[in-house]
Amino acid sequence: MNRSRLEPLGVPGSDYRYARDAGESRQPGALDRWLARQITAKLGDAAPVRLALWDEPDVTPRDGSIVVRVLDRKALWQLVVNPELHFGDLYSAGRLEVRGDLLTLLGYAYNSLDEQPSLSRWLAHARRLAAPDLSESKRNIHHHYDIGNDFYKLWLDREALQYTCAYYASPDMTIEQAQQAKMHHVARKLRLQPGERVVEAGSGWGGFAIFMAQNYGVQVRSFNISHEQVVYARDWAKRLGLDGRVEFVEDDYRNLTGQYDAFVSIGMLEHVGAGNYRQLGALMSRAIKKDGRGLVHSIGRDKPAPLNPWIDKRIFPGAYPPTLREMMELFEPNGLSVLDVENIRLHYAKTLEHWLERFEQNVDAVRAMFDEAFVRAWRLYLTGSIAAFIHGKLQLFQVLFARSAENSIPWTRAHVYEGR
Amino acid sequence: MNRSRLEPLGVPGSDYRYARDAGESRQPGALDRWLARQITAKLGDAAPVRLALWDEPDVTPRDGSIVVRVLDRKALWQLVVNPELHFGDLYSAGRLEVRGDLLTLLGYAYNSLDEQPSLSRWLAHARRLAAPDLSESKRNIHHHYDIGNDFYKLWLDREALQYTCAYYASPDMTIEQAQQAKMHHVARKLRLQPGERVVEAGSGWGGFAIFMAQNYGVQVRSFNISHEQVVYARDWAKRLGLDGRVEFVEDDYRNLTGQYDAFVSIGMLEHVGAGNYRQLGALMSRAIKKDGRGLVHSIGRDKPAPLNPWIDKRIFPGAYPPTLREMMELFEPNGLSVLDVENIRLHYAKTLEHWLERFEQNVDAVRAMFDEAFVRAWRLYLTGSIAAFIHGKLQLFQVLFARSAENSIPWTRAHVYEGR
Repeated sequence: MNRSRLEPLGVPGSDYRYARDAGESRQPGALDRWLARQITAKLGDAAPVRLALWDEPDVTPRDGSIVVRVLDRKALWQLVVNPELHFGDLYSAGRLEVRGDLLTLLGYAYNSLDEQPSLSRWLAHARRLAAPDLSESKRNIHHHYDIGNDFYKLWLDREALQYTCAYYASPDMTIEQAQQAKMHHVARKLRLQPGERVVEAGSGWGGFAIFMAQNYGVQVRSFNISHEQVVYARDWAKRLGLDGRVEFVEDDYRNLTGQYDAFVSIGMLEHVGAGNYRQLGALMSRAIKKDGRGLVHSIGRDKPAPLNPWIDKRIFPGAYPPTLREMMELFEPNGLSVLDVENIRLHYAKTLEHWLERFEQNVDAVRAMFDEAFVRAWRLYLTGSIAAFIHGKLQLFQVLFARSAENSIPWTRAHVYEGR
Repeated sequence: MNRSRLEPLGVPGSDYRYARDAGESRQPGALDRWLARQITAKLGDAAPVRLALWDEPDVTPRDGSIVVRVLDRKALWQLVVNPELHFGDLYSAGRLEVRGDLLTLLGYAYNSLDEQPSLSRWLAHARRLAAPDLSESKRNIHHHYDIGNDFYKLWLDREALQYTCAYYASPDMTIEQAQQAKMHHVARKLRLQPGERVVEAGSGWGGFAIFMAQNYGVQVRSFNISHEQVVYARDWAKRLGLDGRVEFVEDDYRNLTGQYDAFVSIGMLEHVGAGNYRQLGALMSRAIKKDGRGLVHSIGRDKPAPLNPWIDKRIFPGAYPPTLREMMELFEPNGLSVLDVENIRLHYAKTLEHWLERFEQNVDAVRAMFDEAFVRAWRLYLTGSIAAFIHGKLQLFQVLFARSAENSIPWTRAHVYEGR
């Protein structure tokens, strides 16, 4: 598979540029207007969305309605042919404007288009089910996570740099509080005890590994294939004097060895590929001691569907959110017992709202780092993800497990909620 | 399928009798002793179990070991041919004695034999995956639940007659307390509010329907195909003056109509047949309002396996404990979102221990109702079930669900644990 085109948006290699003023088109004709109506008709009669063309520069939406304005004829045709793929590119390039609330528009889109996945989406899906090999995984991860630590620091929580769903124990928490609460929530589910050894698959910037060592007195070994993240995480641990207790290994989770009291993976399964679940589950089963515990935290689905093709192409190449049924391939063949599943979908919508808010507060800095097309692409991605979680197109599952027939499991889940 | 042979144990139609003194066999020879060693070898080297033959009437186990004594040659051959089926019948008939701890013996059996399911078990399994029709379901349910309310009242909890897994909020609860706690646990997960309407699939003797009306002020409609149970439940509700708020319908869940605030089913899925899950899920989806909630409580498995053939033949014809993956057929095709899964396997072991304790306290009354073979069969069934839950061969899943994309779901699960 040729992934060379899939460089991060707005950095060298990007195959499109912000081009709001690009191209003059002839005046729209009857065919153009008919096509425009076909596009909005797909959103359903109830959606107060109108598609305006390049001859209406000053159109404004009224009473909460939304106007999508297409700035050239080619953009219109691309939108007709494959809206799910091209909407994102056209929006990012400024060849398509949204006047009115973007989140509301994307909500209508999720509730209509997603019901009729195109052939190209299912072809992409078949690819997702295949198991990426090590070098492909590395390219995919590099694409998303290595575009610059400074960029993510502009809008993630400032304490733990968590680029995964937070847990709002109460809905009025800040993003900082909610990410701390998420880490406590996971650590409590795992019943981490001082002196225990934990292995983590997927470190991010090291925030959770460092948190566990600091707050639960455990020894952590954490695997990550993103070079920039590993360098960052090692430096962070060292500055805190924790480098003796938290080890960051720049390697694929598939090379994990040893036995631990707990296995944890937050936001990595999405990148594993469904074809690798059985193998990952076997590894999880080997990685925990007889009385070990494990937790997998992952974006998921209520029913199987491929990832949105634009997200797949521009944002998260190779990502796939599984259904709970698909996730069972981790546990069922590998002598593992599922103890607890929690779906915190709405917490991811709120997490993304907080991220988007901070992204917009720092948008000038982002633009200075990259360009306007990058800004628009990430605005669309974050807003679209909020819509996906609000409209139930994506779920967030935390699955706690132990070995089958292991009886040192907690008697109830009350300990997770005590004193909080 | 001819089910006429499958009458309840010890009542007219039973095809075997308690017969400890039945049949004299020739003195055991070398072949008999070799076969005896083959049987115990299957339990593994670590199991301190010896098989004694009919020429050793006075054998006693020492130091916590166990002696299984076979009383005639035909019994020995039956045990060789199909131990999983015949052990139960021979034990019940008194043609096989267990000297030493029965629970320990069954634990060894579960940890060995279950790993190598016989062809006959898998054939039975294929049958389970088929969908029983209405009349077959009715026969299966009659077999187990209509053998006499008085029998179950001897050993179930005395307040709510719950013949399903209890919830021990603390491990020192009595069976009465734990069944009340189970019902509160389910009602809290469902967030039942006064005035709401609840539909129940599978009433038992009506205990949970009555509990919900009394404690949560809801209106309940409950379906059951066991005639004896429905008669009992109606009478119970009437005596409490609740017959205006709790309706018991003697009909199959498949004939359920209307829309409700909550759907609940405790201990029925085991009898539904995996081939019917998609249909049941569609019904659950139709049965709840837009903001409705549902909970399915069922025995399950970590990995697929047929039910023990003796339990299937003598105790629970047609029962099948699904894996979580198999259960997803209820939700995934039917626009439902899984919010919460809790596995309370060890609570079922404790529930069964309490039931067995009370069963033994009342064993004389049971014997007077039925016969010694019935007593031994139920002792084996209850003890074997304890072993199955302790050794992780069976799980107990509570699955909470709502419609996909419904956002009136609870923010966290903390409300389930508040003030308890």
